Amino acid sequence: MTIKSDIEIAQEAKPLPITDIADACGMDGAYIEQYGRYKAKIDNRFLKETNRPDGKLVLVTAITPTPAGEGKTTTTVGLADGLRRIGRNAVVALREPSLGPVFGIKGGAAGGGYAQVVPMEDINLHFTGDFHAIGAANNLLAAMLDNHIQQGNALGIDVKRITWRRCVDMNDRQLRSIVDGLGGRMQGVPREDGFDITVASEVMAVLCLASDIPDLKARLGRIVVGYTYDDAPVTAADLKAAGAMAALLKDALKPNLVQTLEHTPALIHGGPFANIAHGCNSVTATRMALKLGDYAITEAGFGADLGAEKFLDIKCRMAGLKPDAVVVVATVRALKHHGGAARAELGREDLAALERGLPNLLQHVDNIKNVFGLPCVVAINAFPTDTAAELKLVEEKCRELGVSVALSEVWAKGGAGGTALAEEVVRLCEQPSDFRYSYALGGSIEEKLETICRRIYHADGVVLTPAAQKQARRLTELGFGELPICMAKTQYSFSDDPSLLGAPRGFTVTVRNLKVSAGAGFLVALTGDIMTMPGLPKVPAAERIDVDENGRISGLF
Amino acid sequence: MTIKSDIEIAQEAKPLPITDIADACGMDGAYIEQYGRYKAKIDNRFLKETNRPDGKLVLVTAITPTPAGEGKTTTTVGLADGLRRIGRNAVVALREPSLGPVFGIKGGAAGGGYAQVVPMEDINLHFTGDFHAIGAANNLLAAMLDNHIQQGNALGIDVKRITWRRCVDMNDRQLRSIVDGLGGRMQGVPREDGFDITVASEVMAVLCLASDIPDLKARLGRIVVGYTYDDAPVTAADLKAAGAMAALLKDALKPNLVQTLEHTPALIHGGPFANIAHGCNSVTATRMALKLGDYAITEAGFGADLGAEKFLDIKCRMAGLKPDAVVVVATVRALKHHGGAARAELGREDLAALERGLPNLLQHVDNIKNVFGLPCVVAINAFPTDTAAELKLVEEKCRELGVSVALSEVWAKGGAGGTALAEEVVRLCEQPSDFRYSYALGGSIEEKLETICRRIYHADGVVLTPAAQKQARRLTELGFGELPICMAKTQYSFSDDPSLLGAPRGFTVTVRNLKVSAGAGFLVALTGDIMTMPGLPKVPAAERIDVDENGRISGLF
Repeated sequence: MTIKSDIEIAQEAKPLPITDIADACGMDGAYIEQYGRYKAKIDNRFLKETNRPDGKLVLVTAITPTPAGEGKTTTTVGLADGLRRIGRNAVVALREPSLGPVFGIKGGAAGGGYAQVVPMEDINLHFTGDFHAIGAANNLLAAMLDNHIQQGNALGIDVKRITWRRCVDMNDRQLRSIVDGLGGRMQGVPREDGFDITVASEVMAVLCLASDIPDLKARLGRIVVGYTYDDAPVTAADLKAAGAMAALLKDALKPNLVQTLEHTPALIHGGPFANIAHGCNSVTATRMALKLGDYAITEAGFGADLGAEKFLDIKCRMAGLKPDAVVVVATVRALKHHGGAARAELGREDLAALERGLPNLLQHVDNIKNVFGLPCVVAINAFPTDTAAELKLVEEKCRELGVSVALSEVWAKGGAGGTALAEEVVRLCEQPSDFRYSYALGGSIEEKLETICRRIYHADGVVLTPAAQKQARRLTELGFGELPICMAKTQYSFSDDPSLLGAPRGFTVTVRNLKVSAGAGFLVALTGDIMTMPGLPKVPAAERIDVDENGRISGLF
Repeated sequence: MTIKSDIEIAQEAKPLPITDIADACGMDGAYIEQYGRYKAKIDNRFLKETNRPDGKLVLVTAITPTPAGEGKTTTTVGLADGLRRIGRNAVVALREPSLGPVFGIKGGAAGGGYAQVVPMEDINLHFTGDFHAIGAANNLLAAMLDNHIQQGNALGIDVKRITWRRCVDMNDRQLRSIVDGLGGRMQGVPREDGFDITVASEVMAVLCLASDIPDLKARLGRIVVGYTYDDAPVTAADLKAAGAMAALLKDALKPNLVQTLEHTPALIHGGPFANIAHGCNSVTATRMALKLGDYAITEAGFGADLGAEKFLDIKCRMAGLKPDAVVVVATVRALKHHGGAARAELGREDLAALERGLPNLLQHVDNIKNVFGLPCVVAINAFPTDTAAELKLVEEKCRELGVSVALSEVWAKGGAGGTALAEEVVRLCEQPSDFRYSYALGGSIEEKLETICRRIYHADGVVLTPAAQKQARRLTELGFGELPICMAKTQYSFSDDPSLLGAPRGFTVTVRNLKVSAGAGFLVALTGDIMTMPGLPKVPAAERIDVDENGRISGLF
């Protein structure tokens, strides 16, 4: 049997016209703007004008990521299709993929196998142009900033303390660190600079957290781009850039409607990094999914220590959202990796490695259940190599925590492989829950950091470098002390050391750098080096990507 | 009386759904992909599958540009509306505006007054994302190039001889000249580099000259990005980038359908620079306009010495197009400027200055009629300050050349102000013509340059610097000697000196640099400094641009 690639499966699909998908949601056509036959934007007026009640909010998160893969997006899509199969009205809310990884290593990011969103080529390439709009707004602000300095620098901006970087939606390591403004006095002011990938731009986080255009403009205006010679922050509003940036973003703020292979509505909108930003789709898309579906299934980036924590502590807090249930995705292979099994051995039964790796899953589950107070189910994304004994071991250990396990076979079977998980999610959504944040906003920056590190990461505590201590004092003086914290930490470990797998103990987390994302509305705490501009590998995926004379794309996977 | 701004007029318009515009053209809905309610892309399959005959092709060009403005796009739009008013089926084909000027000085570029294309805000901002796609394809090639070098440089690319630059659709002088790849051995290879504005990318020219996806891929593959240590050209095909670039461009290759204020169909597609590139909308859009309209009205950038010459010698030659008539747009004000009148005095009657400036118009008209062999009409874009005596003088001088003059009042009156011009265009299109190119491809590079400079610019000849002579030899050795020439010259004079107004004599043109745009399929001859990355002015237009809570944009003009 040859296994079909994701793009082959997607291209064999028979999607419905997007207007049919919108009709099936009962959405008035006046809110729909088509982008081609199978994509649409939905006007945010819908959120203001509808009187529908909210559905249930289900978050899909995962164990600590490994090279073995977890299949979080696939599970999210398959769960929604599974809910439809058991007669429930489910809607998916996901992040948009970035172009960079598409041409780098990762390939597409629209689910996999028979649990995908389509049209996958469009979603993985420009889609409806949101990321390009974000890049343009980011780079307009940069151009206005440097132009202000070139034209006399009335605000007294210190060129050595500019924090705003340009961006491009591409993996381009050559742009990580540059000197620009060269070539003489008419060509700008020479200074150190650099580019981030677009998903790392604060404009991305702003767009994803903004509730409407006025909120978007206010947030854009608060973005800090650098500091004056007098150490005062300089904002986008000071540069009179917020209006034009918002004009560039007015359509990007509208969620995008597509469909799964099984015609389940999917809102795919926004895609902030899950380290220096909060890592989940837009607030507007989540709110719309809650209005359109009795069950809104959404996803957060990386493992639950980063993605779910930020979804719950930042996004839910800002937007007033309350989840009803959480799915933690794991694979037997990835758990064995956490237990120390070699990559080549992951296909072999190894109960000892599995048992050594299970604490990673259990600690994430425990956090969701006991720190955040939310009902939780473990979804095992099935692989053909999983053995009955292995699955039984996972079930037993989870049962000890009072958490059930559902096998998810959505990659191979689509929604039919997700009904067991769907049934359990329906059951959990009827249970009482006691949702609470992991930390209060009122404490000092250090107190909040300490709480996250102890409660979520199970560290012995946090250490701030002298530079970070000074930054904490200054940010507090500037009035940013009560913002929530966005931890920028490796996704490969509960700790700040990517080599510590499983559920490590006896470590402290070191915060090296604190900065404010005042538009997004959080403080970013950096632990170690966080890459905000990826590079291409030796053989980029781009070399395989092609398009034929009929516009049919190949080589995306 | 308060004069309404362009955006106010545009926002008061009642555009028809774009599907109605397509229906009125008799276009099968299967070819239409909507982008919102008032924009659509048309599948290029239409060109292959239709059996309609071609309409008449009318080129709108202009005198040598001045700060007083000529109103070329406005005249193009108003002429098409005027043709509709006299019962002719006209379709407009125009370039897409660049974001850079929108936020800089120029403001919008979608016509003016009552002769505009709408939705003007969308057209001036991201439109359907074509320019972002072009930027992404350009920057993917750059990232793959630098990645190739970083990963071992198997092709032996000389980092000092890389000619491919990155691009961004923004006026950002800070990026003109940079050093990138800084930060250590894992961060790329330090080298001099720089960004152009997206419209200056060769990918833009390639997209605009490509007839279909296979031609697009072949052209992309031929793009020369630099030279090896052995002085051999390195192409995008060598870097295996052409397939992925074409995948990024597959939708951008489809022309965009919008409408004028009077519901005339308008194809707006592509926008290459008119100096380092050929300065007119895509071949696919022009071909589609010829199929959809009995009259296809299109425009070329800058004055007729640059825009029309390249339209005729490059685009028409490559695409096998044959124009039926040419409109040369002038204003009395701009002619007085060419005659030496001060800017503050342009509103006053000044027959002497007008007479001194008229040779500029007459030389352009003479070129069109006698070099290219095409029927020609002068359109005077009317201003309230024009006097009867001034208009009479223009008419008399043109009559001496056997060319008639039509007053165009489309800015103030829409199509009703363009019927006189429309009647004349209809008449010209019935006349026999003897279209020929201004030079043959077979001569040497120097011979072709000499011919253009003598016949079109009326120079005494051309001089190549020693560097340019050497480049001419090398480009000929590499097999590029038979390509057409794309002159990169100041748009403000027939000569290469922007201060020589009117119709200067007794000058020679100096070519300082020759480079090949092998994908586009022409040689670029640079005379003096050509700015490929504009800067923002002291007070950028962006500071005035805003969007309200309903998504309504203000400050575009």
